Amino acid sequence: MQIILLSGGSGSRLWPLSNDARSKQFLRLFPDGTSMTQRVATQLRDAMPEARLTVATGVAQRDAVLSQLGNGTGIVTEPSRRNTFPAICLACEYLWREGCSEDEVVVVVPCDPFTGDAFFNVVREMAEAVARNAAPLMVMGIRPTYPSAKYGYVVPGKKRDGIYEVRRFAEKPTVPMAEKLIEEGGLWNAGVFAFRLGYALTAGRKFVDGMTMADIRRNYDKYPSISFDYQVAEKEKSLGMLSYDGDWKDLGTWLTLTDELPQHFYGHVLTDGHSKNTHVFNELDLPLLCLGTENLIIAASPDGIIVSEKKRSENVKHFANELKTRPMYEERRWGTYRVIDRTQSAEGFCSLTKRLTLDPGCCISYQRHSCRDEVWTFVEGMGEFVLNGERRPVQAGETIVIPKGALHALRAITTLTFIEVQTGCNLVEEDIERFPYEW
Amino acid sequence: MQIILLSGGSGSRLWPLSNDARSKQFLRLFPDGTSMTQRVATQLRDAMPEARLTVATGVAQRDAVLSQLGNGTGIVTEPSRRNTFPAICLACEYLWREGCSEDEVVVVVPCDPFTGDAFFNVVREMAEAVARNAAPLMVMGIRPTYPSAKYGYVVPGKKRDGIYEVRRFAEKPTVPMAEKLIEEGGLWNAGVFAFRLGYALTAGRKFVDGMTMADIRRNYDKYPSISFDYQVAEKEKSLGMLSYDGDWKDLGTWLTLTDELPQHFYGHVLTDGHSKNTHVFNELDLPLLCLGTENLIIAASPDGIIVSEKKRSENVKHFANELKTRPMYEERRWGTYRVIDRTQSAEGFCSLTKRLTLDPGCCISYQRHSCRDEVWTFVEGMGEFVLNGERRPVQAGETIVIPKGALHALRAITTLTFIEVQTGCNLVEEDIERFPYEW
Repeated sequence: MQIILLSGGSGSRLWPLSNDARSKQFLRLFPDGTSMTQRVATQLRDAMPEARLTVATGVAQRDAVLSQLGNGTGIVTEPSRRNTFPAICLACEYLWREGCSEDEVVVVVPCDPFTGDAFFNVVREMAEAVARNAAPLMVMGIRPTYPSAKYGYVVPGKKRDGIYEVRRFAEKPTVPMAEKLIEEGGLWNAGVFAFRLGYALTAGRKFVDGMTMADIRRNYDKYPSISFDYQVAEKEKSLGMLSYDGDWKDLGTWLTLTDELPQHFYGHVLTDGHSKNTHVFNELDLPLLCLGTENLIIAASPDGIIVSEKKRSENVKHFANELKTRPMYEERRWGTYRVIDRTQSAEGFCSLTKRLTLDPGCCISYQRHSCRDEVWTFVEGMGEFVLNGERRPVQAGETIVIPKGALHALRAITTLTFIEVQTGCNLVEEDIERFPYEW
Repeated sequence: MQIILLSGGSGSRLWPLSNDARSKQFLRLFPDGTSMTQRVATQLRDAMPEARLTVATGVAQRDAVLSQLGNGTGIVTEPSRRNTFPAICLACEYLWREGCSEDEVVVVVPCDPFTGDAFFNVVREMAEAVARNAAPLMVMGIRPTYPSAKYGYVVPGKKRDGIYEVRRFAEKPTVPMAEKLIEEGGLWNAGVFAFRLGYALTAGRKFVDGMTMADIRRNYDKYPSISFDYQVAEKEKSLGMLSYDGDWKDLGTWLTLTDELPQHFYGHVLTDGHSKNTHVFNELDLPLLCLGTENLIIAASPDGIIVSEKKRSENVKHFANELKTRPMYEERRWGTYRVIDRTQSAEGFCSLTKRLTLDPGCCISYQRHSCRDEVWTFVEGMGEFVLNGERRPVQAGETIVIPKGALHALRAITTLTFIEVQTGCNLVEEDIERFPYEW
């Protein structure tokens, strides 16, 4: 059995903690220091220990997935952010090329449901229903707790052998329409699917039928940018549905997220004890003092600071474009980096200063930049450094100047921290050429 | 005539905008980008254009005074923070050594009254009263607007030739006592004095009577650490008083300060238009988004972040010790610096990364450090750099490594910005030896 975990989302709703490289599902906000993605992956593995997990995500999140789920996880990266139909088709083409049989059952699960283990047991039952040919495609409905206008609905029909038929789908309705849908027995559409691999391949190959993954990726925009529900599920005559009746939450906004967090203060936070219903997330290396506040969400990260009355916090999405910046903090497969300074001179000359931390044993690939010089000053730990083929040990206190065009690589022996000052006229992450290097 | 501007105060009440090196009076919060100190100095110069201005302040604030008031200002720095009696004695000894006659009239004014020009006309009248020998010591009373428990009171007696006698002083009273004092005609003690230089010298020389300023500074703790009111004014039989009846405010707390600021948002602040009675001060290079907040003070600086309900904001003083840190931002006579990163490794090895900006024509003194290496990467502008006696031009894009023990100096030709990474085991501002250098 195969699981495809859909890890999309641009993360602007939880700004400034989330950004394009760190969507909400990667924030380590649970009491044990885990993220939403880690929580869901663990729940899926517990419910379906024999299944293989593949994450469909954007290029910018590849390193976060590797860092949080480990190297054993399959990853397929979307060439561009589109909808669930293209994402699922691409992931299925990847599985097919990895040797997965067209008969194998695949379940598709979004990476952000905040729910109990019973939910994942229903996911397994959906896969089992496909395996015994009860239906070619299974979807999941969630018993609504209120007439939400934020979710799509599925209205069940007759039940046969424990499986519902689906009478119809309804896109995000108005609240009065949602009330009617619920009276009719309508359920929230969970965005979970189960099918055999060949089923999705057939659906996708109407649009793109290349020979190699590279061909398919190149033609990715030929898939219609619509949801899998709309393109496939709503057209399926023999669709089956299972229902889930239990706790479920979409933690996609500050309000729903903070409702579920047992802890109120994250990071270096001081308070006078007179703050009520205030959640504070401080990721900066600065103290944050909170005096007598009520019903607030306060979050500070290298990307920015928000102070919001809780009910108004959804409005953050309206500022997403104005607040967009290069990522100021990223979790990479080798460790983390943070931008600590940016300077732009009147003459167009720029600098970017970062603090980077490599985990022991991890490497930064052999690379060169064509538009920038870099100065690295090591401030913690020991490692090995390569400059134009010559390898040498480095340690805290040493400084290395890397002129533009010079090939360089780094490997950490112990946790290795350094300050990098980039200077040049075009300082972007994309100015990088990578080369193989044998350590 | 001489003016002594008393510029004390530790600045913990306006944390995180103020710190030991940047007390509240140096914050550039007025609409024209000026500070309290600049405003008061301008008002004093307008009221008494013939007088010479000397600022009595702490060592940590010396550079801020020079930067804000210019090189023409006299500065006397207190060896340690004590009370107004020692500070005034020291300043008077300094004036005497600068050639000021013992007959010359001196006025002493605190640097933080937020008031109109009429206040400074009363200061001038106090000096004129001393000059015509109406009294050897003059004080000022301010007509109270409410029975405050935060100020000292002076109760006037008879009025002769336009000058009140003083019946008695009252230290900060309770509110009911303040009500009685006001019924009695009591006024707020403005902390303004006028006397002839010899008068204060006599008072001070009972305790310290050295020959050189260095002797006096060395014996500074022999002056009792009490107020000039208590030590001198309250004992003076022929004390005179003038009253001021107009707007006057002590902007020493977040609440009183924000009451007077016409502008609500400082720095990079975005808001949804639903914030009410919220003042935001953002000195960080990050956007700050404010949604639907009410009655808040929000301030973010390299020292930290405060989010406080306005009425609770006075409580910041209770956190002053917990929040104390090395200065993270300073205005120096040559420009400004900001600490952008601090790293401490488990082995006790440290790094400190700063961004420094030198104003055109300004210099960093010829100096050396015994415990740290420094790496400077220039990111903007042009200048001249000296290393162990050798001078050479520098410009954006260049990197210089300054090992411990090496003598170095820098001069900006245009505005010169560089990133400094310090590494070593003891990174403190005090690790510095300065030497003369002829540019």
